[in-house]
Amino acid sequence: MTVREFRGMNPATGEALEPAYPVTDAVALDAIVQAASDAARSYGESTGAVRSEFLTAAAANLEALGDDIVARAMLETALPEARLRGELARTANQLRLFARVAAEGSWVEARLDSPDAARTPPKPDLRSMRVPLGPVVVFGASNFPLAFSVAGGDTASALAAGCPVVVKAHPAHPGTSALAAQALSDAARDSGLPSGVFGIVYDDGHDAGLTLTRHPLVQAVAFTGSRAGGLALLRAAQERPVPVPVYAEMSSVNPVVFTSAGIERGGAGLAAALATSISGSGGQLCTQPGLLFVPSGEAGDAFLNATAAQLDSTPACTLLTGGIQAAFNQGTSGVRAHSGVRAITTGTPSDTGATAQLYSVAARDFTPALESEVFGPVSLAVRYDDVAEVTALMRGLEGQLTATLHAAPDELPALADLLAALQDRAGRVLFGGFPTGVEVGHATVHGGPYPATTVGAGTSVGTHAITRFTRLLAYQNFPDAALPPALQAANPLGLLRLIDGDWSQRQRPD
Amino acid sequence: MTVREFRGMNPATGEALEPAYPVTDAVALDAIVQAASDAARSYGESTGAVRSEFLTAAAANLEALGDDIVARAMLETALPEARLRGELARTANQLRLFARVAAEGSWVEARLDSPDAARTPPKPDLRSMRVPLGPVVVFGASNFPLAFSVAGGDTASALAAGCPVVVKAHPAHPGTSALAAQALSDAARDSGLPSGVFGIVYDDGHDAGLTLTRHPLVQAVAFTGSRAGGLALLRAAQERPVPVPVYAEMSSVNPVVFTSAGIERGGAGLAAALATSISGSGGQLCTQPGLLFVPSGEAGDAFLNATAAQLDSTPACTLLTGGIQAAFNQGTSGVRAHSGVRAITTGTPSDTGATAQLYSVAARDFTPALESEVFGPVSLAVRYDDVAEVTALMRGLEGQLTATLHAAPDELPALADLLAALQDRAGRVLFGGFPTGVEVGHATVHGGPYPATTVGAGTSVGTHAITRFTRLLAYQNFPDAALPPALQAANPLGLLRLIDGDWSQRQRPD
Repeated sequence: MTVREFRGMNPATGEALEPAYPVTDAVALDAIVQAASDAARSYGESTGAVRSEFLTAAAANLEALGDDIVARAMLETALPEARLRGELARTANQLRLFARVAAEGSWVEARLDSPDAARTPPKPDLRSMRVPLGPVVVFGASNFPLAFSVAGGDTASALAAGCPVVVKAHPAHPGTSALAAQALSDAARDSGLPSGVFGIVYDDGHDAGLTLTRHPLVQAVAFTGSRAGGLALLRAAQERPVPVPVYAEMSSVNPVVFTSAGIERGGAGLAAALATSISGSGGQLCTQPGLLFVPSGEAGDAFLNATAAQLDSTPACTLLTGGIQAAFNQGTSGVRAHSGVRAITTGTPSDTGATAQLYSVAARDFTPALESEVFGPVSLAVRYDDVAEVTALMRGLEGQLTATLHAAPDELPALADLLAALQDRAGRVLFGGFPTGVEVGHATVHGGPYPATTVGAGTSVGTHAITRFTRLLAYQNFPDAALPPALQAANPLGLLRLIDGDWSQRQRPD
Repeated sequence: MTVREFRGMNPATGEALEPAYPVTDAVALDAIVQAASDAARSYGESTGAVRSEFLTAAAANLEALGDDIVARAMLETALPEARLRGELARTANQLRLFARVAAEGSWVEARLDSPDAARTPPKPDLRSMRVPLGPVVVFGASNFPLAFSVAGGDTASALAAGCPVVVKAHPAHPGTSALAAQALSDAARDSGLPSGVFGIVYDDGHDAGLTLTRHPLVQAVAFTGSRAGGLALLRAAQERPVPVPVYAEMSSVNPVVFTSAGIERGGAGLAAALATSISGSGGQLCTQPGLLFVPSGEAGDAFLNATAAQLDSTPACTLLTGGIQAAFNQGTSGVRAHSGVRAITTGTPSDTGATAQLYSVAARDFTPALESEVFGPVSLAVRYDDVAEVTALMRGLEGQLTATLHAAPDELPALADLLAALQDRAGRVLFGGFPTGVEVGHATVHGGPYPATTVGAGTSVGTHAITRFTRLLAYQNFPDAALPPALQAANPLGLLRLIDGDWSQRQRPD
């Protein structure tokens, strides 16, 4: 039997990169999922301390790869070194953040309702907590070869929850993926965990990803990427005899609304900051501001012209893959061809790199066709006369990851309708600033109404992401000693728990 | 235009009950959903105190209906008076429980991550909380005309979350539904809320339910009923241009495993308690134990014979509807016809009422065909020689609401594999006792892996149910005064919040 292989491509040169990576065949894939399933019970019952040790070791291993993984990621993605060094630090810190969450342990939301034998009918002893779902499949994303890939947020949160992870490596950065996978596998081994807690699958096509999503032992899927890709996985998961959740983050144009006072408040640096948010990392960020609402008139003109000038002085950049470059060329052509759209930037679109582009259109000429995400350094400014116009357009937009308002604070009461529309359409609303640069914290929400994500209720970044890979399980009238430590009366883990309706870290007399 | 009407049926007599209820036509249905949507913003922004007042008033109104609603429910469902009086109290208490949750307010899980302007890059001020989804459709269930119907747990939890509710009344109890609806509408009016916060739709067919599920303004659907019904709604919701979550609780046979020591520990009352759990409310409970695992041999024989004797002395009962009676007759015929199955009860199956029935089959003859829920007073005992057999069969079962183990506490260590299988297959595991009689509390989990429910991660009973009707929303760098009170630094609501990773009720210096 011949093994099919593929190579990463250097997007800057179009050259294939050594070495070749074998496509994981069906037999090997099944063995990897089976190993994950075999590890699920012991890993799901492992202590927070063990998971914390594992994730902390993975962070250290990843950092130890430093120059090697950054160099490989530069070759495979054409992203600049500074960006990738920052991303590596973020990825390691993200693993450590989830290590702390796992070690602390209160994320299981333990709840204890005390029994009452004297009541009619007798009240049972009821205790519940979050438990891990089992093996999770994580798809690496092209645009964050570290932070949203093999050892990224989906993997970190699933492992913290107690779920074994099988990663489908993104075909655009197999070498980076292999390095990160080794960091995780070594950490698992050094933490005394079965090797099945982490596995990786390679394929430059779609078969392996669909096979994983359909595998009966897989319990959840996490994906960041294109809408077509996310919807294909969602469909496959829904058509299973036993459907499983697909947490797909798919597309967003991240509207930014400026009032005149907001532009004034932003001052001289606002245009440059906007241009950076549009074109940074080649505009290849989920939260890139692709849609702007700017008041008609001179102040708006001047602001957009300054932004365009900044974009015009930005060197054309190499996009992540040839496919993304082709989609960018097609998408920007579509924008230019739309009735009423005119270019503000002057750079000539190029076939060999992405020139940053800024367009404008009058609010009355805006149509849903202009709402589609064009992945790359391009943004469209919708010029409006009246905030009510923006509010109406905003209400008609698809669900978004973010929505931003640049206004003066004293305008906010008068902008209540607009603000309600922004809150309705997004998972994160910003007052000033720009949506790129997602902070990884406890309050982070990187999610949003469909089609920004398939499960609009949650987040794929930040500590709340852990709940996606869990379900609730209640125990009724169990002997205390037979319960998981999180639910034992003596509270041996010192967790914050809901005891008879009150949150506390106390023990319960038993 | 003629208005189509339908009447409730007295299942005990087969007679139609006055008055007739008009089927809600498409125009009226749309107006009801539109009113819910119009009310969504103001109700979503209402304080916990307002929602609490509303739910508390609804509880009082419902209780004030006392004799009237119990009498009507008896006519429409043939359920006994004592059961319905208990259900009425439970339903009112459930509304009051959610009133307290709304008033207390910490359920929004407010999270505040403090800014740090000195960091590179600057750390933003990020705060997040749960916000209501918007209009929710709730389907009344036939088997709990009060507690899982118009003013039941789904309605209470959605209203507590800040979502307007449109109920699709169950066609088997329109009169009971209309009374409960009036209790809710009056409470909304008396609490100064727009009438759109609660609406009700009648239809004796499936059109209105599907139209509601497909309505673009509807944001979530809650359903308790048959698997066919739940899956039809799930499909409709998934096929929408913007899919919405369907929380459907569909079917469960609630396996109960007995060891010999467990039977001994249960003592003389165990058989009677099991018989009551099988046949109470005509066995028409989601958690009715339809599948038993009983050791081979004399002790198991004696236990089952005692259970059968108790069931044989239970009068045949009238089931909720003619359709349920027909499905019961067909389902029990299928069990009887299955190879290796024999009847332990001696009662003659009847076409006009449901005779309680107990069957047995050897573990080696058990097939998935015997796993289908037969709604009504029937249970199947699988006789086993070895716990490993039970563990293997349990692993192959579909997802369940509950799984119960009757064993001696000192057996538990040796039963670890079986216990793991029970936990894997159910949303609630019980040690001893029986799964019927779901306690409504904070630790309650009434959910379970597919197909017990469509969203196995959650619960439809108990205070945790509120999260189903919410999503996460983050605010970045907003002026404190422009934020919802739950997120303001001074913590004016006194909530428990996660501040920089620590849960506390403190204020945050701002």
